[in-house]
Amino acid sequence: MSRWEPNARGRLEHAALELYSERGFEQTTVAEIAKRAGLTERTFFRHYADKREVLFSGSSELEEIFVAGVVGAPESAAPINAVAAALEAVAARFPERHFSRQRFAVIVANAELWEREQTKLASLVSAIADALRRRGVAEPTANLTAELGIAVFKVAFQRWVDGPGEPDFSQLINESLDELKAVAADR
Amino acid sequence: MSRWEPNARGRLEHAALELYSERGFEQTTVAEIAKRAGLTERTFFRHYADKREVLFSGSSELEEIFVAGVVGAPESAAPINAVAAALEAVAARFPERHFSRQRFAVIVANAELWEREQTKLASLVSAIADALRRRGVAEPTANLTAELGIAVFKVAFQRWVDGPGEPDFSQLINESLDELKAVAADR
Repeated sequence: MSRWEPNARGRLEHAALELYSERGFEQTTVAEIAKRAGLTERTFFRHYADKREVLFSGSSELEEIFVAGVVGAPESAAPINAVAAALEAVAARFPERHFSRQRFAVIVANAELWEREQTKLASLVSAIADALRRRGVAEPTANLTAELGIAVFKVAFQRWVDGPGEPDFSQLINESLDELKAVAADR
Repeated sequence: MSRWEPNARGRLEHAALELYSERGFEQTTVAEIAKRAGLTERTFFRHYADKREVLFSGSSELEEIFVAGVVGAPESAAPINAVAAALEAVAARFPERHFSRQRFAVIVANAELWEREQTKLASLVSAIADALRRRGVAEPTANLTAELGIAVFKVAFQRWVDGPGEPDFSQLINESLDELKAVAADR
């Protein structure tokens, strides 16, 4: 049995992001991450399959929050408002901005990580569309509404990580939802 | 100098898609593609860098049509309608359904190809957002409208390749644009 390492995941994540930011993802080794975190490589591999995994370990939790938000929205909510409720739940539980910004910068700088990020977003669309269908939303509305939810998420996220720091993520999500309505109304 | 091979690209593309569909992308070699097309491997490599490239050679043309459509839309067109004009131009020049369906099935079946497809779509969003900014559309409207355009494109494309064959791609694009407006209006 291993000794107890308080918050090993958080420490490894913090150390990994620092190193990826300082010297680049490819130039960082697991040994260096473990050392910076004050832990062993063995501990690293108890928590993460590889150094890429550190950046994507939140994906399944994100998907769960999205799906629970859609499924749990009031029965009377229109599809876009079920997705809006999910987006609010996501924004409320999102990692703090500094972490998100650092993570995103690392991903943008590496083609392989960028591909994985895009694929993760496509999986989120599928999961949200499934959740909408469970609410009785028919196709193609379910699929389109899921795509719109992720479009709003991406645009709000980009503004949040680019911005100087004023509006919080929830507010940017709401602004993007309003913008979606305004843009589509011109059709 | 090489001898003239009439429509070598088309023959290679056709042969490659047939083979990818019959035995899977990974199990197909360039030698087999060339043989089925009645051409040499050397000819293959004059046209494509590798067997993956056969599936993505249309990407830059697709992006050009999108961008030209947005830039060339009437000056008075709202952002969403500039994107709608681009989508119409894309639909009008899209490969025929059988080809698109076959290509999509191959891509869905292979994780690496799927990642590349998602990344290609993300690049399209960036190119469309750029084109909108050249029309004077401000952020975050440019970025969001570009995302919506690709959302509509993806949903219409999915219906087109899934469907039994009735509506053409242009019609599905238009239906998805109307659906976008209806979904967003409930916000």
